[in-house]
Amino acid sequence: MAEPPIRILGVDPGLRRTGWGVIVTEGTRLSYLGCGTIISNDKAPLAERLRELHDGLEEIIKAYAPDEASVEETFVNKDAQATLKLGHARGIALLVPALHGISVGEYSANMVKKTVVGSGHADKQQIQAMIKVLLPKATYNGPDAADALAIAITHAHHRKARALAKGL
Amino acid sequence: MAEPPIRILGVDPGLRRTGWGVIVTEGTRLSYLGCGTIISNDKAPLAERLRELHDGLEEIIKAYAPDEASVEETFVNKDAQATLKLGHARGIALLVPALHGISVGEYSANMVKKTVVGSGHADKQQIQAMIKVLLPKATYNGPDAADALAIAITHAHHRKARALAKGL
Repeated sequence: MAEPPIRILGVDPGLRRTGWGVIVTEGTRLSYLGCGTIISNDKAPLAERLRELHDGLEEIIKAYAPDEASVEETFVNKDAQATLKLGHARGIALLVPALHGISVGEYSANMVKKTVVGSGHADKQQIQAMIKVLLPKATYNGPDAADALAIAITHAHHRKARALAKGL
Repeated sequence: MAEPPIRILGVDPGLRRTGWGVIVTEGTRLSYLGCGTIISNDKAPLAERLRELHDGLEEIIKAYAPDEASVEETFVNKDAQATLKLGHARGIALLVPALHGISVGEYSANMVKKTVVGSGHADKQQIQAMIKVLLPKATYNGPDAADALAIAITHAHHRKARALAKGL
C-alpha cells in the first residue's frame, strides 16, 4: 500500500545559530524542500533572543507545513552555563512544533551520524557528503542547516522502521 | 510625582513545577494579586510538557496583564542533564512574556534572598516569613509559588532603585 508523502522538519538548536531543514519522505524516496539558519542578535536580552528563535520557527512551520518534527538531543558538555543556554534554545525548538500540534522526535548526535553515514564517529564532512548523495538538490548555507537536514533524514528512517515494526 | 501602579509577574521555573506570583508596586507600597504553581505531566513527551508550561503562563498573563516580568536565574548544579531540563523550562518562562512585549528581568537566587530577607544565605522558611510580612494577603500552595512572589518583590525593589538612579 502506498504511503502518503510526509514532510519532516529537522532542527539543530542553538542560542546563537539554529539550523533547520525540511524534507519529504514518500515510500523509499527522500526529497529536499528547504533549509537555513536562524541567527539571534547576541546583543539583545535573552528573552528577546528566544523570541527571535520562536518567530523564525513559526515562519518556517507556516511556510512548509511539516507533518512531523525532529530535534537533536543536545550534546551535554562540561560547561554548565553553556548547557543551560543550549537548554533555553532547545526548549523553544521543542515548543514551537508542539504549539502547532506537530509531534517531535528526539535523536542523539550519535544516532544521527549512525543513520546518515553508518558510523557514530563520522565527522561533519562525511555527513555533508552523504547529504549531497541523499538530497542532491539541497543547498545549505552552513553546518547548522546541514545538521538539521541530517536530523530530518534520521527521523525519516526511524519512522519507517517504527511503521514496519507495527506492520503498517 | 506619583508613579503609576505596576503589575509584576515573578516566575520560578522548573520542568515539573513552575511557581508564579503577581504583585502590584505603587510608590513604596506592595500588594498581592495572585500566585500558584503550573505542574506538567511527567508522563507526557518533553515537547508536550513545555507546551503545558507555555499554556499555563499564557493564561496567567491574560488573566493578570502584568506590565513587567522577572525570572529566577537558575541554580546551575553539577548534573548536566538536570541543568539542560531546567534550561528548557526557563527558556519557556523567558519566552512567553517576551511574546506579549513584556520586559523580563533576571535575578539570581542569592540576590532574591538578599533583597527579601537581607542575607544571601536565608533559607526557605525565612523567605516565606518575610513574604507574610510584605504581602500579608498572599496565600500560596507551595514553596515554588512563594519563591515566585519573592522574585516579583526583588524586581519591584530593583526597578525602583534603577528609577531613582535615573532621577525619575
